[in-house]
Amino acid sequence: MHSLEHLLSFIREDAPYGDITSEAVIGDIRCHAFISTREPGLVAGLEEAAALFSYFGATILNQSHDGCEVAAGTTIMSLEGPARGILLVERTALNIIGRMSGVANRTRLLASLLASTGATTRIAATRKTSPGMRLLDKKAVLLGGGDPHRINLSDGILIKDNHLALVSLESAIMRAKQRSLYRKIEVEISTPANAVAAAKAGADILLLDNMTPDLVRETLALCTKHGLRDHLTIEVSGSIDETNLLLYAIPGVDRISAGTLTHSVRNFDVSLEITHKL
Amino acid sequence: MHSLEHLLSFIREDAPYGDITSEAVIGDIRCHAFISTREPGLVAGLEEAAALFSYFGATILNQSHDGCEVAAGTTIMSLEGPARGILLVERTALNIIGRMSGVANRTRLLASLLASTGATTRIAATRKTSPGMRLLDKKAVLLGGGDPHRINLSDGILIKDNHLALVSLESAIMRAKQRSLYRKIEVEISTPANAVAAAKAGADILLLDNMTPDLVRETLALCTKHGLRDHLTIEVSGSIDETNLLLYAIPGVDRISAGTLTHSVRNFDVSLEITHKL
Amino acid sequence: MHSLEHLLSFIREDAPYGDITSEAVIGDIRCHAFISTREPGLVAGLEEAAALFSYFGATILNQSHDGCEVAAGTTIMSLEGPARGILLVERTALNIIGRMSGVANRTRLLASLLASTGATTRIAATRKTSPGMRLLDKKAVLLGGGDPHRINLSDGILIKDNHLALVSLESAIMRAKQRSLYRKIEVEISTPANAVAAAKAGADILLLDNMTPDLVRETLALCTKHGLRDHLTIEVSGSIDETNLLLYAIPGVDRISAGTLTHSVRNFDVSLEITHKL
Amino acid sequence: MHSLEHLLSFIREDAPYGDITSEAVIGDIRCHAFISTREPGLVAGLEEAAALFSYFGATILNQSHDGCEVAAGTTIMSLEGPARGILLVERTALNIIGRMSGVANRTRLLASLLASTGATTRIAATRKTSPGMRLLDKKAVLLGGGDPHRINLSDGILIKDNHLALVSLESAIMRAKQRSLYRKIEVEISTPANAVAAAKAGADILLLDNMTPDLVRETLALCTKHGLRDHLTIEVSGSIDETNLLLYAIPGVDRISAGTLTHSVRNFDVSLEITHKL
Amino acid sequence: MHSLEHLLSFIREDAPYGDITSEAVIGDIRCHAFISTREPGLVAGLEEAAALFSYFGATILNQSHDGCEVAAGTTIMSLEGPARGILLVERTALNIIGRMSGVANRTRLLASLLASTGATTRIAATRKTSPGMRLLDKKAVLLGGGDPHRINLSDGILIKDNHLALVSLESAIMRAKQRSLYRKIEVEISTPANAVAAAKAGADILLLDNMTPDLVRETLALCTKHGLRDHLTIEVSGSIDETNLLLYAIPGVDRISAGTLTHSVRNFDVSLEITHKL
Amino acid sequence: MHSLEHLLSFIREDAPYGDITSEAVIGDIRCHAFISTREPGLVAGLEEAAALFSYFGATILNQSHDGCEVAAGTTIMSLEGPARGILLVERTALNIIGRMSGVANRTRLLASLLASTGATTRIAATRKTSPGMRLLDKKAVLLGGGDPHRINLSDGILIKDNHLALVSLESAIMRAKQRSLYRKIEVEISTPANAVAAAKAGADILLLDNMTPDLVRETLALCTKHGLRDHLTIEVSGSIDETNLLLYAIPGVDRISAGTLTHSVRNFDVSLEITHKL
Repeated sequence: MHSLEHLLSFIREDAPYGDITSEAVIGDIRCHAFISTREPGLVAGLEEAAALFSYFGATILNQSHDGCEVAAGTTIMSLEGPARGILLVERTALNIIGRMSGVANRTRLLASLLASTGATTRIAATRKTSPGMRLLDKKAVLLGGGDPHRINLSDGILIKDNHLALVSLESAIMRAKQRSLYRKIEVEISTPANAVAAAKAGADILLLDNMTPDLVRETLALCTKHGLRDHLTIEVSGSIDETNLLLYAIPGVDRISAGTLTHSVRNFDVSLEITHKL
Repeated sequence: MHSLEHLLSFIREDAPYGDITSEAVIGDIRCHAFISTREPGLVAGLEEAAALFSYFGATILNQSHDGCEVAAGTTIMSLEGPARGILLVERTALNIIGRMSGVANRTRLLASLLASTGATTRIAATRKTSPGMRLLDKKAVLLGGGDPHRINLSDGILIKDNHLALVSLESAIMRAKQRSLYRKIEVEISTPANAVAAAKAGADILLLDNMTPDLVRETLALCTKHGLRDHLTIEVSGSIDETNLLLYAIPGVDRISAGTLTHSVRNFDVSLEITHKL
Repeated sequence: MHSLEHLLSFIREDAPYGDITSEAVIGDIRCHAFISTREPGLVAGLEEAAALFSYFGATILNQSHDGCEVAAGTTIMSLEGPARGILLVERTALNIIGRMSGVANRTRLLASLLASTGATTRIAATRKTSPGMRLLDKKAVLLGGGDPHRINLSDGILIKDNHLALVSLESAIMRAKQRSLYRKIEVEISTPANAVAAAKAGADILLLDNMTPDLVRETLALCTKHGLRDHLTIEVSGSIDETNLLLYAIPGVDRISAGTLTHSVRNFDVSLEITHKL
Repeated sequence: MHSLEHLLSFIREDAPYGDITSEAVIGDIRCHAFISTREPGLVAGLEEAAALFSYFGATILNQSHDGCEVAAGTTIMSLEGPARGILLVERTALNIIGRMSGVANRTRLLASLLASTGATTRIAATRKTSPGMRLLDKKAVLLGGGDPHRINLSDGILIKDNHLALVSLESAIMRAKQRSLYRKIEVEISTPANAVAAAKAGADILLLDNMTPDLVRETLALCTKHGLRDHLTIEVSGSIDETNLLLYAIPGVDRISAGTLTHSVRNFDVSLEITHKL
Repeated sequence: MHSLEHLLSFIREDAPYGDITSEAVIGDIRCHAFISTREPGLVAGLEEAAALFSYFGATILNQSHDGCEVAAGTTIMSLEGPARGILLVERTALNIIGRMSGVANRTRLLASLLASTGATTRIAATRKTSPGMRLLDKKAVLLGGGDPHRINLSDGILIKDNHLALVSLESAIMRAKQRSLYRKIEVEISTPANAVAAAKAGADILLLDNMTPDLVRETLALCTKHGLRDHLTIEVSGSIDETNLLLYAIPGVDRISAGTLTHSVRNFDVSLEITHKL
Repeated sequence: MHSLEHLLSFIREDAPYGDITSEAVIGDIRCHAFISTREPGLVAGLEEAAALFSYFGATILNQSHDGCEVAAGTTIMSLEGPARGILLVERTALNIIGRMSGVANRTRLLASLLASTGATTRIAATRKTSPGMRLLDKKAVLLGGGDPHRINLSDGILIKDNHLALVSLESAIMRAKQRSLYRKIEVEISTPANAVAAAKAGADILLLDNMTPDLVRETLALCTKHGLRDHLTIEVSGSIDETNLLLYAIPGVDRISAGTLTHSVRNFDVSLEITHKL
């Protein structure tokens, strides 16, 4: 779901007191325009772009679905409307489509790598998003076949190293359960022994952070040995990208979360062209 | 300049109704923490991070300067304050530092490539920024030694192809001059003849877009031949990155603008560690 | 956690263009004031009241803890500061304390009733709060010893009758799990057979809505018979208040959620008195 | 008058980053729904609910009038539209209708009690409303046949005990008149002598606060004796509710203001049911 | 009362993305500055200017009182602080002081004219203010010795010609009284007969609009003849300024409202000078 | 370009909690209304007024063009719609039209004076606008035939005396050029020698402030003598209005900027009349 109010804040960012070029140069005319891709891939952000163009008076004639795969040179949206409105929105729309498609394609790449091994492990995002783009980055991850993970700090319990520097593991889990009996509790884990302690204390999800694949395996084995594997979800993270992803596609790992999905994005290449006056 | 109000909107994005983990798990205690780099490079965004930590009650003990070069493992900020405040700001601060430093380093890289040739050509940003990060992306470009270019649509006259699809070159320049005798007028140019026409019509800056290096040279020569070079500024753009940048470092080219500075960013790797309670 | 910005919106509501009486009548003087209770009970909202008084220049000299039980006639806050600031905040502060304490006391009443039976069943809130007071109502429930439950529609999966009017139970649960493997899924249940179907389809929490106590018992028995009780959380709801609460304190019921905690609140009676000029 | 912007803030409160259940579970479908009452009474808040449903794309087919009396089981609104939009608004709409109708019914109850005695005394609200609901609470009082009284601190002059702790009665009234010759001046009164002094100093309205009925009568008599009754309006307040209201329906009392109208509200019971896909 | 939030909106208006000159040209230095008048007169807006300078880090060393009369060349504020902060606020502060002092001086002029005749008639403002400046314009009127009149449409009942084009005088007054027994009701009047009808129907204030002085006298006489003058307030308006004001200073006229106070303002001339670095 | 959001803030200013008169007095009816002028002149602000009336449900039947000249008594807008909506907007719309037309007419007056001499010198606005009206004041200047000049502090480089009190002229210009090679640099000048220094240092525009006409001539001559006139734009300012404007219409002066266009405005006289119910 996009919020129109949020999308309009991007227009204000790009035109705090108007588009001075178009206001000076272009009269009160209408035109036809289209957006096309310059590379093949999955597209995202079209719903958001369409909402902005519509708000400024344009009619969307045709539009690809968010999440579909297209060839280079595909027209993914065609529209008609007031030229000034279309030019006002142009760059913001392209930036949204560019970034969201970039995130979606990167997610798709890693999801496909995992799928190719036959593993059921899913790729997941982190909160390492671009400020201002959190919800759209997360939506793009979903469109790319990833798991959006915790949306923000209000959205889930995740007890991390920095909490454990201030409070003991057992005490942290106990307090979290008291507050919220009905929410899953995730705990960041750095050693196999840690994992066992957290599971015994009631953690629902273990986040094995910055472990080698061997240590991940050892941790899983230790949990099994202690009879703690049944209702435990296992997540792995820590500088994982396409170069080392498959090393972590270990049976028993449910989810691999990777900052790279959103913190190292190359925008997908799209452009808008005005074809003629109406 | 950062606007506190803008920075706080990023906190609201990451904690719309609080940091439920820290509220449940951490008491009302104070702690010491520091931010350090995991790779060498130029750092940016520290002013913004400090403003946020301060707003939530922390005291900055020490802080590197934005724009300075540091080694991997450098402590770039140390601070003390309420643990919940520090944990609330942590990820947003790191995301800001990560992205701004990423943009600054990428700008520095391209600026250094240009400088290495002895050219006076400057690298410049575009409006292909991440929505919500426009001003901070532009500030990071400046810290990396680049030219921020037009900040937004309100900030300068740039007559582009999409305008020229609707109005003639001469008429567009005339209208822009009428509106604003005292602002430089930039025009997007696709052919040498185009360049001459625009300069004759009164353009101050030519943006040679998607031309081959040879075509750029030809355009410059043609302008010179028509006696139009004196007060003309020349900018070049179009899919330029580190792989082809130096091909465009042609004498007479004043500025090369490259979307890659901000649309293909790898976040700089920094982390925050809480060391102990106070 | 209170957000100052949110609290200030309440001041704007009560003084859109100032406190015209105090501005006309009271000079630029400082005074001493205190807030006291007119009935015994648990107090809440003092943190919020203090934040507002402080923002308008007052110094809090003394303040009871939110969540503590006090006698009628107790001074729960004493403060000094500019008279106009104190009078500007007075009614808003009292309204916040009055409502939050009202919610907390009502929660405490029902929680005590449950506790008196030795049951481990917890009382929980719903989203039937007063618009504008959601977070503070939920905080008050927590202070009264209740479970805040899902804070809002973004905060948890709860598949209700109105969803099931549009999609089958199995399909709804499957889609929810696909989207969010790591979040508990709660389903509203109206018959014992329904409960079995939902548990088999993967529901984590069953919300037995508008069932008689006997039907609740039957449902629990049926789930046990199908071997589905182990990791299932059972919640009961539907017009439950102090008059019928204990009928639902059935072994195996983990949580009873009751709109009455927040939709039928009598404000706790507190008042502010200015004692003298400073 | 409702302000759409204000109503939308309630949706943001209930869905800061979307309705995650409906987004996961329900496709892009349309449905038919209706709101009905579960108890008899006066309904309010329908205008506000309709505005929200309409904003999110629904069409209101039928709607009772705000302020009309309906039986239990009455359909007070029927609508059609996108299922996700209707589910997004559902709880907020019901909370608004529930609270506003609750306030209206409570006002109606007390107004009817007064009317049954043949008195012309009117029941009035105070500023003891739920934060965020001031304007809607006041509108509901009006719909219930009450007097909304001063909307907020900007809306009228009311010199209270806490002002008089800092400035003399005469001086306060004189300053208020100087500021605003054309606004009525109301003064809180605690003794008969006080009343005479205030009326002589120019008060237009006396608020007899926390007096016994006998003291109210004595005060009225004393004012008459001093020839001060002619243009004086008399208001009575102080812990008045249905249990003692008629004791204060004394001839000469123009208005009785009662916090109970808004600070001790039981929400009116309404529900929304989706009947079928379209 | 100024609201900081409102004042900051003026800074955003003047510096939506910073003060690019000072950011480029001035380092991180502190300086001393002062504001002085270039003409004699009453000053206003200093409280607002001081609030803005303080917000951006400056210390006010000395400041004249709002509403005091000063000679040309008087230093009305001296301050020290960060040069960029002072330069950021400079023009906004001068614009506020300039306009508010302009309004205050104009009000003073007309109030003095009235006072010189010995009349008790007061000069009053209208809602013909500059959009965005309503509250500050009204405050300036008060500082100049005028009556601010109705602040806005929420602030008082004033039945005007455009209402009476749609509803009868009697019906309008009756409805207004029903809604609000305790608020004065003002009615716009165009003929003497009109005035009598309105007073009989219960109007508290008559606004004699666009009448000649003779017609005003006739209206007053007619009201007296009908025994309606006792509790009636008389206001006169309609293109009144310094050229014809005294013609309307008729005994029995309580208030003359004049749009000219705020819709024809010449800003008071003040300037800010930076004296030296600190 | 008007921003609807900005215009609505003016309605909130005039009706923070509704139009209490119309809500009490006028039923839910529709009416016909028109706006007419009471004096001859150029009209401005109609686009803004129409946007507000439309937002509140009215239909604009007919509307003059912003910037056209009309006689006294001309109907410049006629409309139909809900009476409450039209009355809610009335005063705000008239205030906008009044002020913008006032600014436009004043600009037209000075522009005509200049044009009558055959000079090409243009009249320009300053930032001495009414807070909250910056963009609309500047738009009105444009409609009146003036040059809007720098919109705000983000919009252009202008090095003024207060900068030069803190940094040397050469250093200031150098820093500004480094920051922004592609933006014109304007410098405030107080002596002829100053002008030469600034031009040599690279200034594009000289703002000759508070010079006598003779000193302006001397400065121009000195620049010519130093061969610096070719690409230099010359602006003159300092207490210039209709009484001394033509003294500064000196050949070679490109622009005269005058605060009087916006800081000493008499609103243009327009009124709205409701004719009948529909």
